[in-house]
Amino acid sequence: MLDRYFLEPLDHARRLQQQVHDRLVEAILDGGVPPHEPLPATRDLATRIGVSRNTIVLVYERLVEDGYLTPVRRRGHFINEQYVRQQLNVRLDYRPSTLFRDGETAGKAWAERLRQHPSRNRNIVKPANWRDYRYPFIYGQVTTDKTSIARWRDCTRLAGTPYHANAWVGDLIDADDPLLVDQVISRVLPQRGLRAGREEVLITCGSQNALYMAAQLLAGPGCRVGIENPGYVDARNIMAATGADLVPLPVDANGVVTGAAMRGCDLVYTTPSHQSPTSVTLSLQRRLALAEAARNDDILLIEDDYEHELNFIGPQRPALKSFDTTGRTIYLGSLSKALFPGLRLGFVVAPEPLIREMRALRRMMYRHPSAHDQRAMAIFLMEGHMDAHVRRLRDQLARKWTTMHRELAARLPDSRPTATTGGSSVWLRLPPGIDCWTLQRAAARRGVLIEPGDIHFLGPEPPRDYVRLGFAAIGLDAIAPGLAELQAAVEEVERGA
Amino acid sequence: MLDRYFLEPLDHARRLQQQVHDRLVEAILDGGVPPHEPLPATRDLATRIGVSRNTIVLVYERLVEDGYLTPVRRRGHFINEQYVRQQLNVRLDYRPSTLFRDGETAGKAWAERLRQHPSRNRNIVKPANWRDYRYPFIYGQVTTDKTSIARWRDCTRLAGTPYHANAWVGDLIDADDPLLVDQVISRVLPQRGLRAGREEVLITCGSQNALYMAAQLLAGPGCRVGIENPGYVDARNIMAATGADLVPLPVDANGVVTGAAMRGCDLVYTTPSHQSPTSVTLSLQRRLALAEAARNDDILLIEDDYEHELNFIGPQRPALKSFDTTGRTIYLGSLSKALFPGLRLGFVVAPEPLIREMRALRRMMYRHPSAHDQRAMAIFLMEGHMDAHVRRLRDQLARKWTTMHRELAARLPDSRPTATTGGSSVWLRLPPGIDCWTLQRAAARRGVLIEPGDIHFLGPEPPRDYVRLGFAAIGLDAIAPGLAELQAAVEEVERGA
Repeated sequence: MLDRYFLEPLDHARRLQQQVHDRLVEAILDGGVPPHEPLPATRDLATRIGVSRNTIVLVYERLVEDGYLTPVRRRGHFINEQYVRQQLNVRLDYRPSTLFRDGETAGKAWAERLRQHPSRNRNIVKPANWRDYRYPFIYGQVTTDKTSIARWRDCTRLAGTPYHANAWVGDLIDADDPLLVDQVISRVLPQRGLRAGREEVLITCGSQNALYMAAQLLAGPGCRVGIENPGYVDARNIMAATGADLVPLPVDANGVVTGAAMRGCDLVYTTPSHQSPTSVTLSLQRRLALAEAARNDDILLIEDDYEHELNFIGPQRPALKSFDTTGRTIYLGSLSKALFPGLRLGFVVAPEPLIREMRALRRMMYRHPSAHDQRAMAIFLMEGHMDAHVRRLRDQLARKWTTMHRELAARLPDSRPTATTGGSSVWLRLPPGIDCWTLQRAAARRGVLIEPGDIHFLGPEPPRDYVRLGFAAIGLDAIAPGLAELQAAVEEVERGA
Repeated sequence: MLDRYFLEPLDHARRLQQQVHDRLVEAILDGGVPPHEPLPATRDLATRIGVSRNTIVLVYERLVEDGYLTPVRRRGHFINEQYVRQQLNVRLDYRPSTLFRDGETAGKAWAERLRQHPSRNRNIVKPANWRDYRYPFIYGQVTTDKTSIARWRDCTRLAGTPYHANAWVGDLIDADDPLLVDQVISRVLPQRGLRAGREEVLITCGSQNALYMAAQLLAGPGCRVGIENPGYVDARNIMAATGADLVPLPVDANGVVTGAAMRGCDLVYTTPSHQSPTSVTLSLQRRLALAEAARNDDILLIEDDYEHELNFIGPQRPALKSFDTTGRTIYLGSLSKALFPGLRLGFVVAPEPLIREMRALRRMMYRHPSAHDQRAMAIFLMEGHMDAHVRRLRDQLARKWTTMHRELAARLPDSRPTATTGGSSVWLRLPPGIDCWTLQRAAARRGVLIEPGDIHFLGPEPPRDYVRLGFAAIGLDAIAPGLAELQAAVEEVERGA
């Protein structure tokens, strides 16, 4: 009966013991092993499936240890039926579609019960299958860096050693991993010209989570929140959901414009290192002006310092917060965006009274980010892997950035890429008459994924002649042919228009 | 100059290469390596610090790869000064205390700017140093299970292989790891008598996070929320923070009492498997009555199904949700609480219209839980490690549960432990005249950590004659001597009273 679980040959490039183990577990859970007969003797099974007898001995031992099998003297190994039946009760034949339908609720419809409808937010829509595009000019994703994955794996292995395990196995309640906080303070912040005490730092599930929490505490009805226009869509949605009034702030080649529009704001959200979505860098003069405006008009600043690592020309600018001597800046940093965006690990630096409330809010919201990831990240930072990763990423992105601008100038001379000193995307004004969504569809048909830019603008009739071309996820060699296809798509749209 | 980094001898029980690497990185970041001199030749350094030359060769190679060192032909290895200076700029001499003080903000005080003050919540206070107590009767923590940690380490290793890595490296935006969702649907839910489609499941940062999100969407001013009294403190805080009216629901030996008090509620939060904090199990009759009340009075139920695995007498009860045919139950499950509470991974099962809004809310709040942990957990479930873990945990806790009740009867015959069929804590009514906080202090002086029970009650004057004794984190052998010390503390308080 077991044979059908071994019809597919074992993969001799992978660990055989694990494979045999997995197939036997599958057979047991599947009801494929009769309960009142012993399993094949180790020697027999080994011969039948072509592995060493010792492999089978080890697999049986582990299955006994796990509770799946019971050894019976002189008779062999039997299924621990009680355990399998009572504890597992696994059925794999679940129905894959919705089981509880709205109509089945006899009472009020859900729409009536819900106090918010966040699903009605206007959001950037990114295809989940972006890896299937030949030319994915998608923003916010990265190419898989095998070296860093291997190093991360080393760090999770270290995190699993007894010395480290005690730090993450338990519920931290409202605390952070002290080792990670120390690494942020001693290694990450000084690179941005910042210093902070432990009480001024909170670890979050990504920097966006820090923004969400700050918004819950500081924004709300009657609060005027300045946001860059065009700007980061999720930030706009987060602020709007609090009921705050959104004040659009214009952006030029030097970043967000200080001055009249900003006056009267209670809170300003800004992306100084590489403005989202234009990638322009806030100039030093602007940073000073913004800090001064905050002081004079008593404005709180939220500095989302993403992609600060990705400057390819000229020196790095110190964080906006480093110019603020009055404690009005809330600094948001990411630990995962440039590494593995799926990890969702970030931090916030702010005055202690705010951090204390954010910590208490986080305790209600989700207690703390995965302590396991926190410890692995602390080790990753300690070992210098992050620095090495950023260095590789910078080198790689600098080459892509150069290629992007060179090829765009050659291929789409009528378009206007925003001049930047770095980042991982190009904000492109399309040639006159080209609609971003028409082009998006024409490009997609040619395997080119681009992001229409209208979503980034506030207001009912956003301009439709911008697109964002991310170049972190696409390979260097794919950029030139990808932009050639984009050129062809533009020409196709022009002919059609 | 390097010598001072090697004053402390290497630990020959650990991997030498890693230790030498770490010390050299420390020396480099510390400014301990002069920039214009080569590092010692591999042979010399090897001799000086007593390791093989090959170890040093490998360490140097890795430091070159990471960007810290540059090899110069015939001259040796030099610091990559530009990299170290420009990219790292690490200073380890941060000040450990608050840098931005409230007083430094010239404008409004933070108290005035904040719209919520979650730090003013009444919360259970658990000492972070609970491991230092000889007898930690703390709830919500677990003993470190070395086997499961080793298995988890295996799973993170597997998650780092190319096949799995693509699933977690990227930003999932608002999606979940499909493999984890499949495991929840096919392996976890059937054990609770539940079935669900993929659109009815959302992965969360622990089950409390699911509760928080449901509360944001469904509770608020004018909403009447039934909560168990005594009940789970964080749930009470979460519901109160929405501005909802809290309706205390009494609890007896069969769990939360249905009937008059529940009528008029819009939403009821309940912990059927092991009521928090009493650990009593909601009877089958009550489950049916609760599902019927929900239908008749159009009440939404939030079922927090924690510790469902921990029943030691009689059969497991199917989830409350399995009795609800009208889609009014929101089911919260944890994937980490019984395994590694610090992991913070859970899920919610609910009708699709609610899951859709929770997903959109989660996108704003933090996008998604660590995709790395999600994939590692999916593999952990697939491989059957969770089932094996729960089995070991049950066996261990069943023994502790028996010991607790036996020793309490012998040691504290005047106290009244609540009768249960399982769980990981005992809810104990103290002998007449003993105050829970007085006892807590007397016990702490004897190395016994107990949790005063007053915090679990709603209202201004909670009873002060209950304590909770958790027994998941304490060793089996420590229970009897720990309760003997508790008995001595009780006698001390009685003498003092």
